[in-house]
Amino acid sequence: MEVVITQEKLSQALANTSRVATSKTGLPILGNVLFRTDKNRLLVAATNLEVASTNYIGAKVVKQGSITIPAKIVNDFVHNLPKEQITLSVKNNRLHIKTPNHNSIINGVNDEEFPELPTVDIKDSVTYTLAVDDFKTAVSQTIIAASADPTRQILTGVYWHTNEKSLFLAATDGYRLAEKKLMNVSSELNAIIPTTTLQEVLRSLRDDITEITILIDETQVTFLLEDIEITSRLIDGNFPNYRQLIPSKNETSFSVEKDEFTRVIKVASLFAKGSGGGINLDVNADDGTVSVSSVASEVGENTSTIKATITGSGSVSLNSRYLIDALAVLDGPTISFGFSGKLAPCVVTSGDKPNYTHIIMPLKS
Amino acid sequence: MEVVITQEKLSQALANTSRVATSKTGLPILGNVLFRTDKNRLLVAATNLEVASTNYIGAKVVKQGSITIPAKIVNDFVHNLPKEQITLSVKNNRLHIKTPNHNSIINGVNDEEFPELPTVDIKDSVTYTLAVDDFKTAVSQTIIAASADPTRQILTGVYWHTNEKSLFLAATDGYRLAEKKLMNVSSELNAIIPTTTLQEVLRSLRDDITEITILIDETQVTFLLEDIEITSRLIDGNFPNYRQLIPSKNETSFSVEKDEFTRVIKVASLFAKGSGGGINLDVNADDGTVSVSSVASEVGENTSTIKATITGSGSVSLNSRYLIDALAVLDGPTISFGFSGKLAPCVVTSGDKPNYTHIIMPLKS
Repeated sequence: MEVVITQEKLSQALANTSRVATSKTGLPILGNVLFRTDKNRLLVAATNLEVASTNYIGAKVVKQGSITIPAKIVNDFVHNLPKEQITLSVKNNRLHIKTPNHNSIINGVNDEEFPELPTVDIKDSVTYTLAVDDFKTAVSQTIIAASADPTRQILTGVYWHTNEKSLFLAATDGYRLAEKKLMNVSSELNAIIPTTTLQEVLRSLRDDITEITILIDETQVTFLLEDIEITSRLIDGNFPNYRQLIPSKNETSFSVEKDEFTRVIKVASLFAKGSGGGINLDVNADDGTVSVSSVASEVGENTSTIKATITGSGSVSLNSRYLIDALAVLDGPTISFGFSGKLAPCVVTSGDKPNYTHIIMPLKS
Repeated sequence: MEVVITQEKLSQALANTSRVATSKTGLPILGNVLFRTDKNRLLVAATNLEVASTNYIGAKVVKQGSITIPAKIVNDFVHNLPKEQITLSVKNNRLHIKTPNHNSIINGVNDEEFPELPTVDIKDSVTYTLAVDDFKTAVSQTIIAASADPTRQILTGVYWHTNEKSLFLAATDGYRLAEKKLMNVSSELNAIIPTTTLQEVLRSLRDDITEITILIDETQVTFLLEDIEITSRLIDGNFPNYRQLIPSKNETSFSVEKDEFTRVIKVASLFAKGSGGGINLDVNADDGTVSVSSVASEVGENTSTIKATITGSGSVSLNSRYLIDALAVLDGPTISFGFSGKLAPCVVTSGDKPNYTHIIMPLKS
């Protein structure tokens, strides 16, 4: 193998693939990245057997060939090289990296030991193409509600599914739930995509990528980001019927300026560390105020009061951390918060965008 | 006690003092900050018995008094408050914090248990006043060479001393040495200032502070930064006679563009992890090049070559980490590097500023 390539393109591809390569498994080859020429392109790829990241870079291919190389060292090395042309060549299972001033040799492994990279068949797949900004927003708004508990594997993913000609994303960890209506579609879909895969796609999105194509078949999903393909298995199983958790109406609701409400909740959460983050919201329709309080007997106590537009008085207790997470991903300058007494789920939505709903279960106080 | 104060001033003072306050000792009161009125100012102070930070803030003092409060919670809390007037008042050893929207109570401790704050007598002290930028540069250039080993306490400080009417700062960990000529002075001084104290002073320097006054007596040092005073004990003992380590001349020397040399050293260091950071410099006067190489048998090997202005050929091995540290604090676009064979100390200086010398001991290869 011998190719000539720019430092910027190679560094970008190595950053993407070295995040996927892992030295944690018992298979050392999974800690390597694959270099393989493909006509006039260089394929740079890595896989951890769950997710594979393949990056095709335009290159001057002098001689076809391939090798695999430890991901960390080659990524760190190329990242530190100047923005110049780099010549990569393979001799005796060693990768030679040359620039005008640098001459390096990294010991590699023949690519025959490297796992086969997954391919997706466009004929058997449901396909969506959407703007990167819409994808980013929808994924950021839902992954925060997914579970981190590996024993509840279905809940560690985001449920992509269609309902009445709309594509929805939903996630829940049992304490909170996020649902996003992403777009109108004609196809039907039922797929649970691992959160780690979605995070990997978010991290691979360069600023110049504006559109993303998603291919989903029975067992796997592929995200096409121009020259980058990220393929992952789907999570097998049935996502719980979460819609029954979303209240159809609320006895108490208020709308409030998001930034001010966020600050009040953060201040209250500082005093709530002793009580696992629990805070109380007291909504008073008579004087148009929402009081947020926390009691942590050892440290002290705090009550913050803000003006709000209110329908119906009431009180509820919830985990401040969940509310802070939700406020961080809500669009727009104002938010609406609704609940019905101390036991029913709380509903948080954007003041002006109805396509996102965040549910937080109350704390029994 | 009752005072009215702006959020910005109080937040700044709490940031400074909460870094000094510590919950690590057996004395819980040292984890508290002291609030004490002083005529028309509020004193906010903390001490860990080695370093004390006292901040005087202009305030509307309604009622004189004092209290001590856990540093972390009050710092986090005030940091998150809006930029408004804050009323602090003490009732029954509890601090009440009020803003238009927030009403908090933090449990405190009477200030009688708080350690007495150190004072420095200006009559018995050597005093220097200098520009903050000169102070920052000199301290940054020397603390990197100080030891982190608590069993070699003298080497964990920076040696401030006079020699032939100049004030020098020096530090060494036995592997490297940094010396800065700071300014011409008429007084005489011999004092070892803990590195941790100097770091604390650097962190306390707001952008609007342009001048710093330093008072040093037999046992302690005080840094005056406008309304902030940082007082610390000195390290007791005699600093080693380091000057004998600085070579008076070098058989080999070269000057090189600093940023390019830094990149070459960083690239070489990636391959030197297996050998504890060791790299070789080969200086060739005949073709005007410096080659930097590293051999890490498991991973691979690297040689980088750059053009330099050279006097005398030669080779030396040294720890790349020490060289990267030194390059990061050297002034100016070019640096000079000198050595005499494989055993004598290497000397790194700025190309154009002769007042800073950095010495790195070679590796015996």
